[in-house]
Amino acid sequence: MWYPEEFDVIVVGGGHAGTEAALAAARMGCATLLLTHNIETLGQMSCNPSIGGIGKGHLVREVDALGGAMALATDAAGIQFRILNSSKGPAVRATRAQADRLLYKAAIRQQLENQPNLTLFQQAVDDLLLDADASGARVAGAVTQTGIRFRARAVVLTAGTFLDGKIHIGLQNHPGGRAGDAPAQRLSARLKELQLPQGRLKTGTPPRLDGRSIDFSRCTEQPGDGMPGGANAERPLPVFSFMGQPAMHPAQLPCWITHTNERTHEIIRSGFDRSPMYTGQIEGVGPRYCPSVEDKIKRFAGKDSHQIFLEPEGLTTNEFYPNGISTSLPFDIQLELVRSIEGLERAHILRPGYAIEYDYFDPRALRSSFETRQIGGLFFAGQINGTTGYEEAAAQGLYAGLNAALQVRGQAAWLPGRDQAYLGVLVDDLVTQGVSEPYRMFTSRAEYRLQLREDNADLRLTEIGHRLGLVDEARWSVFCRKRDALARETERLKSTWVNPRTLSQPEAERVLGKAIEREYPLFELLRRPGVGYEALLSLEGGRWRPATGAEPDDPRPVVSRETLDDGYAAVVEQIEIAAQYAGYIERQRDEVERGAAYENLRLPADMDYHQVAALSIEVRQKLSAQRPETLGQAARISGVTPAAISLLLIHLKRSRGREFALPGSAP
Amino acid sequence: MWYPEEFDVIVVGGGHAGTEAALAAARMGCATLLLTHNIETLGQMSCNPSIGGIGKGHLVREVDALGGAMALATDAAGIQFRILNSSKGPAVRATRAQADRLLYKAAIRQQLENQPNLTLFQQAVDDLLLDADASGARVAGAVTQTGIRFRARAVVLTAGTFLDGKIHIGLQNHPGGRAGDAPAQRLSARLKELQLPQGRLKTGTPPRLDGRSIDFSRCTEQPGDGMPGGANAERPLPVFSFMGQPAMHPAQLPCWITHTNERTHEIIRSGFDRSPMYTGQIEGVGPRYCPSVEDKIKRFAGKDSHQIFLEPEGLTTNEFYPNGISTSLPFDIQLELVRSIEGLERAHILRPGYAIEYDYFDPRALRSSFETRQIGGLFFAGQINGTTGYEEAAAQGLYAGLNAALQVRGQAAWLPGRDQAYLGVLVDDLVTQGVSEPYRMFTSRAEYRLQLREDNADLRLTEIGHRLGLVDEARWSVFCRKRDALARETERLKSTWVNPRTLSQPEAERVLGKAIEREYPLFELLRRPGVGYEALLSLEGGRWRPATGAEPDDPRPVVSRETLDDGYAAVVEQIEIAAQYAGYIERQRDEVERGAAYENLRLPADMDYHQVAALSIEVRQKLSAQRPETLGQAARISGVTPAAISLLLIHLKRSRGREFALPGSAP
Ligand SMILES: Cc1cc2nc3c(=O)[nH]c(=O)nc-3n(C[C@H](O)[C@H](O)[C@H](O)COP(=O)(O)OP(=O)(O)OC[C@H]3O[C@@H](n4cnc5c(N)ncnc54)[C@H](O)[C@@H]3O)c2cc1C
Ligand SMILES: Cc1cc2nc3c(=O)[nH]c(=O)nc-3n(C[C@H](O)[C@H](O)[C@H](O)COP(=O)(O)OP(=O)(O)OC[C@H]3O[C@@H](n4cnc5c(N)ncnc54)[C@H](O)[C@@H]3O)c2cc1C
Repeated sequence: MWYPEEFDVIVVGGGHAGTEAALAAARMGCATLLLTHNIETLGQMSCNPSIGGIGKGHLVREVDALGGAMALATDAAGIQFRILNSSKGPAVRATRAQADRLLYKAAIRQQLENQPNLTLFQQAVDDLLLDADASGARVAGAVTQTGIRFRARAVVLTAGTFLDGKIHIGLQNHPGGRAGDAPAQRLSARLKELQLPQGRLKTGTPPRLDGRSIDFSRCTEQPGDGMPGGANAERPLPVFSFMGQPAMHPAQLPCWITHTNERTHEIIRSGFDRSPMYTGQIEGVGPRYCPSVEDKIKRFAGKDSHQIFLEPEGLTTNEFYPNGISTSLPFDIQLELVRSIEGLERAHILRPGYAIEYDYFDPRALRSSFETRQIGGLFFAGQINGTTGYEEAAAQGLYAGLNAALQVRGQAAWLPGRDQAYLGVLVDDLVTQGVSEPYRMFTSRAEYRLQLREDNADLRLTEIGHRLGLVDEARWSVFCRKRDALARETERLKSTWVNPRTLSQPEAERVLGKAIEREYPLFELLRRPGVGYEALLSLEGGRWRPATGAEPDDPRPVVSRETLDDGYAAVVEQIEIAAQYAGYIERQRDEVERGAAYENLRLPADMDYHQVAALSIEVRQKLSAQRPETLGQAARISGVTPAAISLLLIHLKRSRGREFALPGSAP
Repeated sequence: MWYPEEFDVIVVGGGHAGTEAALAAARMGCATLLLTHNIETLGQMSCNPSIGGIGKGHLVREVDALGGAMALATDAAGIQFRILNSSKGPAVRATRAQADRLLYKAAIRQQLENQPNLTLFQQAVDDLLLDADASGARVAGAVTQTGIRFRARAVVLTAGTFLDGKIHIGLQNHPGGRAGDAPAQRLSARLKELQLPQGRLKTGTPPRLDGRSIDFSRCTEQPGDGMPGGANAERPLPVFSFMGQPAMHPAQLPCWITHTNERTHEIIRSGFDRSPMYTGQIEGVGPRYCPSVEDKIKRFAGKDSHQIFLEPEGLTTNEFYPNGISTSLPFDIQLELVRSIEGLERAHILRPGYAIEYDYFDPRALRSSFETRQIGGLFFAGQINGTTGYEEAAAQGLYAGLNAALQVRGQAAWLPGRDQAYLGVLVDDLVTQGVSEPYRMFTSRAEYRLQLREDNADLRLTEIGHRLGLVDEARWSVFCRKRDALARETERLKSTWVNPRTLSQPEAERVLGKAIEREYPLFELLRRPGVGYEALLSLEGGRWRPATGAEPDDPRPVVSRETLDDGYAAVVEQIEIAAQYAGYIERQRDEVERGAAYENLRLPADMDYHQVAALSIEVRQKLSAQRPETLGQAARISGVTPAAISLLLIHLKRSRGREFALPGSAP
């Protein structure tokens, strides 16, 4: 049957990509339908119960700045928050939260159910409706398992690990979309008929443990930031969303740390002959940066111990997620290896670990908007594009959803630059380079990482989000206050000069460490190491503080605790970072621009990388395997460092001569 | 692989039967393993989000009295409670609760996860392990999908609707255990190989609606009992468990009532030619007493409207369950029929209605303990035995779990009598009569229904539960106080005589309606219509109230608000019911005992029921189809009334003569 109503956008799949896609299209005013296997699994986390981390946290904040759901859901569900790299520079600082699985699902479902313009429908999608127009094939809707035909002008496919999903435990395997869920076999077959370029990838998950059977006294406690009673109790309790408040968080729990040992490693090795990975049962490639424990033992044979985080799965469950022992070894080995670990001697496994193999589609067959080149109006997002991770999926989902909506509206796609957002890096990486293994985000993938920070995601993207129709008025008005206060104060700090004649030496030393030898604008004084905004404004009895109402024509809020409430700290943080990192950020921009010159330098087709002795074996292997066409592409292969690129360039200049001498480089 | 630990009892399936079975065996001290497809679906309600009702509520209270989980979970999850039949006699009064699906699941999971001796493991069971001993085949454990072999001394199988489950919507069908869950196909095939007598049944569920698309102003509100602001606000807020408190309940919501109309019925009829039921696609028989809406239209062609309850599915969802329009008609008909109903003109369907067909096993192949006759140590419980309903499943699960535990302990099975519990009726009905359609509980199935009340389930079963090891000490001590207070007060009321000489006429009239003509024990005065316990004890300035500490040797608590707190009302209720219904209960007992004489009267093998003109066509058809062997069996066929039995007996006496003249009956 034809469903009587027509939709602008249909999203297939209610995982992390699908929910953001559906919410984004609906927020942008499109009549949107989310078709998914099971309403009960909306927002389900297939693997680890945590959101964020380095690179990933950045994506979450960008999704949030564009009005997405993930950060707010994490604020409502997070049972442990930590700022990673908190002692390092702000570019690599990142938020990570442990989430209560049930609360997370509930928060996502609540957002979906209450989103205007969004309709949910539970049923597997088995096929796509296609039309042909002058410019080729075009999607016209989706067909469910029982033959209901839903018409739409665009379709976003976010099938995750479900397409022809196959679950492996040891040498046994069976079809599945993830443990407990059926796979999407018919849709997989149908997509294969459409001859979209496609391959197989795999990913894995550890066994889950019954907390009642863990001896926590033999593990090290790891409390979250701001967790009362914990070691980091004095730190502020982080929030993920720009609109988040610590008061949204449920009760906080610690994680626990333990380690594998030599016996664990022996047990693991004893299972290699029954590993689906090492016996060729699995053909899909797994994520190198989220290796299974057997891969770690194999690849780092010298290491005699690996850390394991025991992460609680929620407030109302005893289940624990042992982060670090993802495995598809046979269950007897899983049980033995778990029980060889300190604190887990009597651990009971509630669910076995497993690997899953699934279809992905080569993202190089996508336009930058994530529309497939082959079929107009058909967008792909999430794990289906060869990525891994909830955050990567959410970012792509939001992106595909908003671009589908723009297309429906007859507007051009929005394409963020690599210097604008991690989202830009993610999209560009995928569509230009494709994947050879499940792709995940790292800060090292971003050339402009000093300016792509978690702390300024709102400033980078909220205006665009608002223009696109993704950002609601509540967020917009909070954002505008912050942006305007920041601009006003930055201007003032730049135009307010401190004079060495009026500033007494003791006062200068108290605040700035030493006397000033000439006039300085306040902004520049902020660059001095150890000089914070509050301290600076305490100079000379506070005479440099902004005067309330000094310029009555300026409607922008004055920066003070009174005018900005909760927003004060964030504005101060931005001012300090802007002052302290301005130099670095400019230098990075220069470097990147200089680097762009190399970008298109073509690498010789006959190049034998194994001869480049200066490169590490890993880099030589990667270059040999992937054979990049340009130096730019070589530079973006994961694991190929800037240093390696320099070495490669030196080698080329030496061996191939003039053509590799770039303008401006030494002859 | 062999799992290293051995278990006493393995329960397969984490539905309503499986959870009670696993909890019961574990409470009784058995090392118990619950194997289920998916830990996330533990305690999932496959169909309507409600627990209890007439007959079913009785089972829930019995499960509760035996320490089961269902009533407490309902108290924690119930968003609307009502006492049905509250104006009728206490025997047919029953509690019914709407439950928040997510809270219900969470409450069940929490009980399971925290039950000592109980281990959970997520994986499909594909096979049973069998041993042969001197007495024949014996179960030895279960084998999961990936070949893990768990050893146990008894196995309880509670696979619900999953065995070879097939989902039908119109003429389309696909394998499924219920919508969103995969079926158990391998286990079904394996059980067929074992040649246990088996058949197919079916059941159905309505489409679910998005509450945002319902016009509630066109429906009638139906508030729960004790719901603030509702029409029944003055009634007490009911609780389900003996240990329940109204304060456990989450916020309360109303239901809504609307109706089908002639157009609805036309639409439904227009789909008959694509109904899987009427075109022979479904071979399984469905529950006559939970008919699909198409069945209602077909069977009650004269009725031009049927009531529909719009039941909220939870506090955090907009989803509504339209109770009364279960259907497996094609989706286009579903959509049209829904939208023809007042208030649902613009309703959006979130999940389609469907029917499911599944394997069941003939319960006549079970011993009374629910152990299969063919395979020692293998117990069956729940929907697999041909029943329908969460409550029926839970009761059976508890029963099979406790009998498995008793067998493991080397003790005799516990077999409740038909006069002791609805559980006894359920078990006896199933094992003696089998099923010809999904079996559900009704109060009319119980001969002794005046004594099998919801209000005395605790008094009937807690002691047995405690003896079996099912009842914990907290419940036991609350129970003992109640039981002892009740006994003490009943004794006192029976032995305390009120004298017409001292009781003034006005005082007698005030309380008893008229003067007493002779001495009466207080207990007997309570039988007078309209005379309650409190009123009675107000006689003569309260001189008949129990004197606190009157008999210092008696450790049993005195009945007063002070000594019994919350328990006071329940004790008073029992005293009043005991007094008021004593006569009826005795008469019922006599009748039933007289009836027992007919029980074993054999019916002629050549009997042609179609000739018994006095019987209704329905009864004649049923007797012809089922050919009961004895009059007792005939009497227990559902729909065969006591009147029909009398008519049959008269016919037999007339046509066959003396052998059907029973001792004591007229010649
Ligand atoms: C075993 C396992 C291990 C993992 N390990 C890691 C890890 O170590 N690190 C990490 O970062 N990430 C890991 N992940 C990946 C992470 O779960 C995914 O990246 C993320 O869930 C992808 O989100 P998604 O929205 O693309 O797809 P999913 O979350 O898979 O959601 C897909 C959704 O689409 C629905 N769907 C699919 N097909 C259809 C259809 N035909 N019709 C209707 N609905 C359909 C599904 O029901 C589901 O709701 C793992 C995943 C699995 C399963
Ligand atoms: C579509 C539908 C409509 C219904 N309509 C009604 C109605 O109108 N009225 C009514 O009273 N009742 C109705 N029911 C019935 C009600 O849902 C069941 O009576 C009740 O759920 C039975 O409980 P159970 O524990 O026996 O089985 P279920 O609740 O079905 O639970 C079975 C459990 O066993 C697990 N399982 C099954 N096989 C395996 C295996 N091989 N390995 C591991 N785990 C396994 C499943 O995952 C599940 O957890 C309906 C059910 C369905 C599906």
